Amino acid sequence: MDLAVEDGVVLTPEGVVEADVGVDDGVVRVVGDVEDADQRLDASGCVVTPGLVNSHTHAAMTLFRGYADDMPLDTWLEEHIWPIESGLDGDDVEKGTRLAALEMIEGGTTCFADMYFEMDRVADVVEDSGMKALLGYGAITVGKDEDEAREEFMQGVEFAREHHGNADGRVRAMVTPHAPYTCSTEVLEEAAKVAQDEGFVLHTHLSETREEVEDSVEEHGETPARRLDDLGFWRPEGYVAHGVHLDEDELELLAENDVAVAHCPSANAKLASGIAPVADALDADVDVCLGTDGPASNNDLDLWEEARLAALLAKAREFDAAAVPAETAVEMATENGSRALGFDAGRVEEGRPADLAVVDLESAHLTPCHSVVSNLVYSANAGDVRHTVVDGEVVMEDGRVETLDAEAVKAEAEEAAVELAEEAEG
Amino acid sequence: MDLAVEDGVVLTPEGVVEADVGVDDGVVRVVGDVEDADQRLDASGCVVTPGLVNSHTHAAMTLFRGYADDMPLDTWLEEHIWPIESGLDGDDVEKGTRLAALEMIEGGTTCFADMYFEMDRVADVVEDSGMKALLGYGAITVGKDEDEAREEFMQGVEFAREHHGNADGRVRAMVTPHAPYTCSTEVLEEAAKVAQDEGFVLHTHLSETREEVEDSVEEHGETPARRLDDLGFWRPEGYVAHGVHLDEDELELLAENDVAVAHCPSANAKLASGIAPVADALDADVDVCLGTDGPASNNDLDLWEEARLAALLAKAREFDAAAVPAETAVEMATENGSRALGFDAGRVEEGRPADLAVVDLESAHLTPCHSVVSNLVYSANAGDVRHTVVDGEVVMEDGRVETLDAEAVKAEAEEAAVELAEEAEG
Repeated sequence: MDLAVEDGVVLTPEGVVEADVGVDDGVVRVVGDVEDADQRLDASGCVVTPGLVNSHTHAAMTLFRGYADDMPLDTWLEEHIWPIESGLDGDDVEKGTRLAALEMIEGGTTCFADMYFEMDRVADVVEDSGMKALLGYGAITVGKDEDEAREEFMQGVEFAREHHGNADGRVRAMVTPHAPYTCSTEVLEEAAKVAQDEGFVLHTHLSETREEVEDSVEEHGETPARRLDDLGFWRPEGYVAHGVHLDEDELELLAENDVAVAHCPSANAKLASGIAPVADALDADVDVCLGTDGPASNNDLDLWEEARLAALLAKAREFDAAAVPAETAVEMATENGSRALGFDAGRVEEGRPADLAVVDLESAHLTPCHSVVSNLVYSANAGDVRHTVVDGEVVMEDGRVETLDAEAVKAEAEEAAVELAEEAEG
Repeated sequence: MDLAVEDGVVLTPEGVVEADVGVDDGVVRVVGDVEDADQRLDASGCVVTPGLVNSHTHAAMTLFRGYADDMPLDTWLEEHIWPIESGLDGDDVEKGTRLAALEMIEGGTTCFADMYFEMDRVADVVEDSGMKALLGYGAITVGKDEDEAREEFMQGVEFAREHHGNADGRVRAMVTPHAPYTCSTEVLEEAAKVAQDEGFVLHTHLSETREEVEDSVEEHGETPARRLDDLGFWRPEGYVAHGVHLDEDELELLAENDVAVAHCPSANAKLASGIAPVADALDADVDVCLGTDGPASNNDLDLWEEARLAALLAKAREFDAAAVPAETAVEMATENGSRALGFDAGRVEEGRPADLAVVDLESAHLTPCHSVVSNLVYSANAGDVRHTVVDGEVVMEDGRVETLDAEAVKAEAEEAAVELAEEAEG
């Protein structure tokens, strides 16, 4: 074997078992006893879980973490985020994404979906960091004439054509019209067609706020979800972000069309969008995965926290303590995300890519251990992750990220963030 | 000076300043430059905050962390928690509370309020651990005859008389009838009288669930809050836990009577009790502090997480992104709690007891630092705390708790928890 993750317990699809995990050529070959291995990773006192999948983020927005909070969405966007974002260049996007990759690896996240701009710089970071990602250029055509809109849209298509499958398949590309309310009907239709014809994942923001739904009804005579349905937008290789304000019929539509939802509980709460109907979505057989959204509206990239919030908020929303149990929250954070993003990981089992998080279970806040899964969801945080593995490569060992220079990444991001803030306020 | 906390920034009532904190005789004497000190604590790259106050918990229930989750409240209590709790003895309570103290100190919590039984064992842990606490025996008289009820109640009164002011004032005692629905009218009235006459804090659970409110209306003809009002229960040195289902008039009642509310957002969500009207409470000038509730319904003792959830859930509940800003969440977790519990800490300023948490700001998930307060509330966790100080004594330095043997505490708690589970499952 290339790698043995030894002496821990393992969260498998059949439950938690005491076992080593043996990896060869980037793939899990054994969940059991492993004798010989070139590299050994100590998992004693730990649980080996599938690597976490952050199914919706805008990674470079780490640079705006804590820059503006606690204000209405329009003030937040118009007076703070857009002005500072307008100063971002490719270097900034690279620095912000590098910081995000560092934070994600530290928290056991092995794979993320990113929709932003300067995406070739994001792809560079994915390549260097050893992570996996599904990347798309967030095309916005509102306020543009037909030629400009076409150019904007094609920028995303060209990015996807150029990058899909790069970095030994660790980079996949998606077509990402930003949202029904920021893209013309033509672009939405064209995006679905290109995704279908060329085999890209199709992803967009959907029904994040009440206002978005009301505005759509006013402008188009129907809700955003029904409008997309009428446009023939759904693809089985498609998923939407947020879905806070979807009714039961709309959830049925998504389920019938195999469209998954990336639930972003922290960001939806923080921006006062509401609490998504996750229990209803699961009842309707919609695949639900988890995202942090951008770190300016979260304000971190801790998927364990999103799993916890998904479980807690569903219970509070439904007045049902059995809603979204811990096991479901873990599935949402791992295999559901991997499936939505078009990767085949998300489970620790033989034949799957070896994307793993190794979580230390021996801290005070994780003692006693009546249930590994409960402790992971209700008590663990990103800081409890000890090792992170992607395609069998150890990208973090004993809390030290191997693929990035943590001190340099933080210093460069801090400097870029300060400069951007000064420019925006200048 | 006895102690200098050096080279960090300090969260003061006037904002964040670059300063050392000088401590003498357990009291903050200087927030500024400190020249000479017997002991020095390195706070470079850190923020010095007031020690966190966990205003409502049942600490020994750490032993049941993760023992039963994701089920309706009645199943959870009747089929799982009560059976395992019935096996608890004083040794178990001590072991569970010791584990809780370890976890709290690790997370920067310096003070907590505990309502449980075998409270003399809890007081021993407070004394040993160096923490501060407000302790009360949770008297339950439902199903008891008059003599038994009196005996149960007096057990709490005697505990309070014996322990109030012990451990150089680090232990304070309260009178704690468990809840309006578990105590007779006579005991509720008597508790208020004893608290008034003898100067104890008065604390109880109030309006945690819809059912509790509906049952009270059915049985007593009025809601629990109005019933307590009619009974003359309110004391300025009094506060209630939860308050999830309080209407605006009831919040006014609490405000008029200077009764604070310990908001427990994680536990209220996890047990599907709902989301408390915190924004309304603040609008009504109710003092709101924060509690984790018992770790079996949370499942940890991370006050930074409660502060974040208080801010996030208020925003989601009210569809108002400006509800409960980060600054307010910090006040709830620090000075509001200290005031409710009858301690005079909760702020880093000259003349206050030196109860401090020193939080490392240099991790990836806390970079960049546009706002210290935002990063604390929206991005930090218990794991980011580097040092903890109570009354000027360093109880944790560089993540190593000085007052407790962490490995022994965890091992003993794990062993007790496993035995209790085996007994309960027979």
